[in-house]
Order: sequence, then C-alpha cells, then structure tokens
Amino acid sequence: MSEKGLLFVLSGPSGVGKGTVRRAVFEDENTNFSYSISMTTRTKRPGEEEGVDYYFRTKEEFELLIEKDELLEYAQFVDNYYGTPLEYVEKTLSEGQDVFLEIEVQGAMQVREKMPEAVFIFLTPPNLSELKNRIVGRGTETSDVVDKRMETAHHEIEMMKHYDYAVVNDEVELAVEKIKDIVRIEHMRTKWMYPKYRSMLDEIVE
Amino acid sequence: MSEKGLLFVLSGPSGVGKGTVRRAVFEDENTNFSYSISMTTRTKRPGEEEGVDYYFRTKEEFELLIEKDELLEYAQFVDNYYGTPLEYVEKTLSEGQDVFLEIEVQGAMQVREKMPEAVFIFLTPPNLSELKNRIVGRGTETSDVVDKRMETAHHEIEMMKHYDYAVVNDEVELAVEKIKDIVRIEHMRTKWMYPKYRSMLDEIVE
Repeated sequence: MSEKGLLFVLSGPSGVGKGTVRRAVFEDENTNFSYSISMTTRTKRPGEEEGVDYYFRTKEEFELLIEKDELLEYAQFVDNYYGTPLEYVEKTLSEGQDVFLEIEVQGAMQVREKMPEAVFIFLTPPNLSELKNRIVGRGTETSDVVDKRMETAHHEIEMMKHYDYAVVNDEVELAVEKIKDIVRIEHMRTKWMYPKYRSMLDEIVE
Repeated sequence: MSEKGLLFVLSGPSGVGKGTVRRAVFEDENTNFSYSISMTTRTKRPGEEEGVDYYFRTKEEFELLIEKDELLEYAQFVDNYYGTPLEYVEKTLSEGQDVFLEIEVQGAMQVREKMPEAVFIFLTPPNLSELKNRIVGRGTETSDVVDKRMETAHHEIEMMKHYDYAVVNDEVELAVEKIKDIVRIEHMRTKWMYPKYRSMLDEIVE
C-alpha cells in the first residue's frame, strides 16, 4: 500500500504574494510538506547556511547540472542561477511524501514538461475592484500607463490557462485554506485511489 | 460575469450508501444544489406527489422521451424506467446553479457521454479491514462465496476508473465534507476561472 507523494507547484505573476502564501502554508500546523531547498549560484549572505537556506554552487557546477538534466527547473535572475534539484524531489515523492514548490512562472512551465502529473496552482491577483484599482488607479494615470497595466493583466491571466487551479489571493489565510483543500482533494483522485484499492484487494487474497 | 453552474454526479456500487450521503449533502446548510426530480414509469405510491417525488409518466411517454434524446440518463429496474430529464439540468446549469445527481453506475456512464465536463464522484466501500470483512466474513464462508464477493469487489473497483474522485464512505459526515470540498475546489479550476477573469478585464475596458 505504498503511495507516492504528490507534487504541488505554486506560482503566479510577480508581486502577487507567492512567497507570503508559501510561508503560511509551511507554517500551518495541518500541513506536512517536504521543503525542497533551492540551489543557487549567488554568493552566500551572512547568516545563510549551505543546505539550509540554499545549496550554494559555482556557475560551472550549476551549468553542469543543467547539462546533466539534474534540475527539475531553473531560471536566471540578473547574473545568477536559481533551481530545484530533481533528485530530492523524486526521492521524497517516492517515499510517499508530498512536495510543495513555490517558483516563478517560467520554472513552473519546466516542471509541467518534466512532471506533468504535478498539480499546478496559480495564485491570482484579487477581485474585480482591486484589479481595476491596480489598472486604472485613481483615474489620474495617463492612458499609456493604464494601457501598459492592462496589457500586463492580460498577459498574467493568459498564463492561468497552463495551471490546474486558480487561487485568489484576497487574504493569505483564505488562500492557504484553499490550497489545503486542493491538496486533500487531489489525493482523492481515482488515479491514486484506484491502485490503492487494487493493492488492498491483493492483500486480502494473499 | 455570468458563470455556468457545475454538474456533480455521485454514484458507486449498490449498497455503498449513495442515498444516505446524497440526503446528507442536501440537508447540509452550507450546500446550495438544485435538486433534479427524476422521472419514472412506476405507479405513484400513497403520499407521493407529481413533480415533487417524481414526474410520473406512462411507459409510452417515457420511451418517446428516450427516442427524442430528452433524458440525460435513464435505467430500467424490474419493469420500470427511471431517468433524469435533460432540460431541467441544462436550464439550471445555464442559470449558474450547481446540480447534484445521485444515480446508478450505468446512468453515470450515460452522463459522461452527454456531459463530459461534469464532475464524477465514486462513493467507495470503506477501508481495508471492512472490505476484508465484507469479502472473507468471519472465515466461515465457503470459498465459493468468498470468490464471488472478491469478483464483485474487483468489478466495483474497476468502475472507479471512470470517475474523477473516489470518496470513501467511512462516515456519512466525513463523506459529505469531502464532497463539499470537491465542489469548492472544482470551482477553482482554471477552465472556469480563466473566462471569469477575462470578462472581468473586459468590464474594466468598457
């Protein structure tokens, strides 16, 4: 009856509050996710520890891992690489433990390629009135600014299509509850329940 | 921002407790489903009302509806037909109201053909030990009886594959909570959220 863990990927437009929601998910006492430590080529800051905050690697080491296809996803920001080591995620899932990743949208699309069975959650900007405020402002913006924001909003919403669920980030607590519901419900999918029941029957026969 | 309602179909092996769970779902004060009244050719019993308990129709009338493809699903038990009128379900969904059907497995497969976007929930017999009890009994059954039950259990579990979710019916209250979670989560799917956000953007532009 060994059951594989599920991979949950939280992503969304920049500034939507992914990091805050991810921290709240991990702090919630009713969640039990394995935390996948990222790898980076940026310099270690005072107080940061190898294997705790990040795995710190040189650019050459990192690029070798890219070449050997040992990263589930990676991205480059400014001059540094950031990525998720594949081995840890695969090992954790095979031990029946769920993994939760909070990554940027380009990384999420790489995970979709490598692990299409993962569950993709898109954190969205809040409701209509707030969206309108973000775009139109107080009505004192130039039409250029409004057009540009509108374009960004369109682009962000188009990204949603590549995800399974859209969770509105109105309030962090509510977003966390929704994510916990998604996790619980995803485990009830027949694609996981069916093999479980099959092996239960096999145990009876033995 | 008019949103279509979702159709939820609860089914499962006979004797698993579908009716009890369905009643509890409708009685729960936090659910708000439209109740689709079934149509039948069986005789009206004392106290039953037309359009409340069932729509009572003659066999000829029922068969005409089958012919005209006006039933979402139907089945024959003993000498009578039972079915779900399509028009009511379509009208209710188009008004943005969720519909919840509790039907037999053969009916659920017909709904899958006609409305593949519906959410299919399979109510399963409880956990391993109870399943074992149901099959092996107290160990005093003949092996023929055990074999027959095992075959039934296998058959039931194979049916699970045609559904989206498997909800274990350990306790009615827990099963109801899981179903409510599924309903909430299904509304967060990007396939529904995306058009909603698109029309929100369109409203801002107008």
